[in-house]
Amino acid sequence: MNRRMVIYMVGQMIKIEALLFALPAAVSALYGEKCLWTFLLCAGIALVVGFAFTLLFKPWNKIIFAKEGFIIVALSWVLMSVVGALPFVISGEIPSFVDAFFETVSGFTTTGASILNDVEALSRGIAFWRSFTHWVGGMGVLVFVMAIIPTVSDRSIHILRAEMPGPIIGKLVPRAKKTAKILYLIYIALTVAEILFLLCGGMPLYDSLIHTFGTAGTGGFGIKANSIAGYTPYLQWVITIFMVVFGLNFNLFYLALIRHFRNVFKSGEMWCYLGIILTSIGIVTANIYSMYSGFSEALRHSSFQVASIITTTGFSTCDFNAWPELSKAILFLLMFIGACAGSTGGGLKVSRVIILAKTIKRDLHRMLHPRSVGTVRFEGKRLDESTINSVTSYFAIYVALYTLAFIFLCFDPIKYGIETNATATAACFNNIGPGLGFVGPASSYSNYSDLSKIVLSVAMLLGRLEIYPIVFLVSPSTWTKR
Amino acid sequence: MNRRMVIYMVGQMIKIEALLFALPAAVSALYGEKCLWTFLLCAGIALVVGFAFTLLFKPWNKIIFAKEGFIIVALSWVLMSVVGALPFVISGEIPSFVDAFFETVSGFTTTGASILNDVEALSRGIAFWRSFTHWVGGMGVLVFVMAIIPTVSDRSIHILRAEMPGPIIGKLVPRAKKTAKILYLIYIALTVAEILFLLCGGMPLYDSLIHTFGTAGTGGFGIKANSIAGYTPYLQWVITIFMVVFGLNFNLFYLALIRHFRNVFKSGEMWCYLGIILTSIGIVTANIYSMYSGFSEALRHSSFQVASIITTTGFSTCDFNAWPELSKAILFLLMFIGACAGSTGGGLKVSRVIILAKTIKRDLHRMLHPRSVGTVRFEGKRLDESTINSVTSYFAIYVALYTLAFIFLCFDPIKYGIETNATATAACFNNIGPGLGFVGPASSYSNYSDLSKIVLSVAMLLGRLEIYPIVFLVSPSTWTKR
Repeated sequence: MNRRMVIYMVGQMIKIEALLFALPAAVSALYGEKCLWTFLLCAGIALVVGFAFTLLFKPWNKIIFAKEGFIIVALSWVLMSVVGALPFVISGEIPSFVDAFFETVSGFTTTGASILNDVEALSRGIAFWRSFTHWVGGMGVLVFVMAIIPTVSDRSIHILRAEMPGPIIGKLVPRAKKTAKILYLIYIALTVAEILFLLCGGMPLYDSLIHTFGTAGTGGFGIKANSIAGYTPYLQWVITIFMVVFGLNFNLFYLALIRHFRNVFKSGEMWCYLGIILTSIGIVTANIYSMYSGFSEALRHSSFQVASIITTTGFSTCDFNAWPELSKAILFLLMFIGACAGSTGGGLKVSRVIILAKTIKRDLHRMLHPRSVGTVRFEGKRLDESTINSVTSYFAIYVALYTLAFIFLCFDPIKYGIETNATATAACFNNIGPGLGFVGPASSYSNYSDLSKIVLSVAMLLGRLEIYPIVFLVSPSTWTKR
Repeated sequence: MNRRMVIYMVGQMIKIEALLFALPAAVSALYGEKCLWTFLLCAGIALVVGFAFTLLFKPWNKIIFAKEGFIIVALSWVLMSVVGALPFVISGEIPSFVDAFFETVSGFTTTGASILNDVEALSRGIAFWRSFTHWVGGMGVLVFVMAIIPTVSDRSIHILRAEMPGPIIGKLVPRAKKTAKILYLIYIALTVAEILFLLCGGMPLYDSLIHTFGTAGTGGFGIKANSIAGYTPYLQWVITIFMVVFGLNFNLFYLALIRHFRNVFKSGEMWCYLGIILTSIGIVTANIYSMYSGFSEALRHSSFQVASIITTTGFSTCDFNAWPELSKAILFLLMFIGACAGSTGGGLKVSRVIILAKTIKRDLHRMLHPRSVGTVRFEGKRLDESTINSVTSYFAIYVALYTLAFIFLCFDPIKYGIETNATATAACFNNIGPGLGFVGPASSYSNYSDLSKIVLSVAMLLGRLEIYPIVFLVSPSTWTKR
């Protein structure tokens, strides 16, 4: 493995993180908070570490293979979270390092699970950094590195592939670097649009930024104890719609930009995603109707929560933990389906669910007609067997690791019971945030032991990076020389 | 499809069921119970229906393809359960037909889930029939039909394949009929052995028969409210060991009989199965140690419950619902792994779990080395891609149907909560019996609505017949002419 190149790229990433600290530092300065010095100190530390990595480990060659791509991404995300946790610890607002690490991983992976029992006690600078990690993690920090620093390698597609979610990575344009740039431009444009819509509804600028970061990255960190419940119906609807938008495959926005509307409307994944959302909203609205004062309120709450869960954002406008079992079961199911591939959302991804369903149908047909070939088509193209295999085996490893993490949680001395542990695992693994039971939207993860918090942090990274980078990072065979 | 042949075979099966009624009738006669007449009436009904089917639908040709095999098996199991429910309804001991159907499906599929709140109130004849269904369903009723009636078709392997659990069906001998005979002879020999061991421990003959039927079929119906808790430690250990034995692949017993001991010891599935059992017993014993008066008691209870759940039997010696979360989580996990392929147990089967794990490992390797071929070996043989595909897609359809059934249960007006509904679904789908929460070993399924009981009955059939026969039975494309 090209170790020097791996460390060099990680160093580049840490330098970028030093720059990112400038934004919360500016916010702190604006509000005259003393955590300004915290951010400046952290930026200094990050710069020293970053330059140490890039200067000491200047690569002899810049060749990156699949393995280097996975390891760069995995290592970057872990170190980025360690460095990103420093402001919480140094400012003393989250004194425990494990808690701060959990919170930062939760931010970068756009999970939104929190160990904070009183989010409103945070200073504005720290709360800004916490939400900003969502925005950075949503599109991927290495995609950002690729977009802004001079091309480091012709093989950087391996990094893009390892960091972008979904079973099939379609480059928008032949060059990976340009693809990264286009993705970030679309991301920024949509972010600005949401901020404007929220400002129009009378939300203060600071709140608008925070909630847009949470929506854009499909993260879910907010600044109010009751999440979005205190805002007007207009603002809740704006966030609902933008959550759905950020759950769409970004390729579709690019296709729309270059006026290939026909291709947009041919997207099977998009229609399936919207179909699942509308069906779920219909069932949940009927199910919770009697709990609210009218149809429009029930519709608003059900739409918001369904959009929030399927896109794996995790904002809430009400305590859905108090909803009837049926609605809770539907939300639990949506946790696993997740958003579209190539979006900022997590979960299995709608495209994987479609491919799995079509593979099952093909295999049922094959059982009766063993000699038939049977193809699986997706988005108008015939999938080859290795893509189908990669989806079914992803599903198997996903279920296996989910189960393992769930079992781990049951070791926790807090003994929360199966409902809480199963949904806590699902909410972290699928990068949603709140679960049901004791980790519902009105509660936090603070009571879990440090070990469980680390297990859940790993689950969040597994979910965001789609398992493989983390598996390769901890696999001994990666580190032994051949 | 050869419809006449399908109906003819189903008719043969119903005639066999009429004969099976003779045993509980004899038991009733012996104890002077009036349900003797119930069984004679039911046998009469079954004979009339059976002969009507076989005489009116004499097949023009006896050709059976894969599709006919699946449909014969699916239809036989549904009708067998309808006819098998009659004694409960006619005797008035389970007046509701849906309840009686649930109980009978639970019996034949060797699930052991019950709607009875007071099992000790049953007459001896009815209780005998209830447990005897386990024994019949364990090895498969159509395997029995094949073993005793003159060969109906050269293609009867399709029936064996559809009814026997496991990813790969190895015929013991070239002819399907002879394979069926050997399987039943081994089954009967082991059954007799367990009865003798129980009698030696002072268990009355009637109780020995009942509990052996429950163990042999890995079913779990008993005659005591507290299952096996009231019997001596010796008897509990005998049942523990026989549960493990009946969870082994029956091919191993055949290999041992023909003195191919080396092949027995080379069985990877057997070692993995025993390894999982011993590891689980170790963890659970340590976890529950403080709840019991000593090491030997804790070991006995943990061994019994682990063996009972992994083999999907469902007997219990204590209320494991009161155990710590960790132990409950391990039992929940074992529910899905299940016993070995080719045994009477349910669940995913250890061999599928092994093949899934090896496929994941192969695919991880392939991600780093895209040009490598990578093979998956099982029991010393290289698996072809279609076998691997069939295992991964079985896993996907299994998880999908499990989730669907779980969602259905959440519609139930009883609103039991996620722990109960998730484990009830798992306990029925994997043919175990008791779940956790409100369907724990000290409770019953009686409070679910009729609709939920039917959903759970379907789940039991899906689990026992390994999904495909039932899917083909209800698939419209099966019934439309090409």
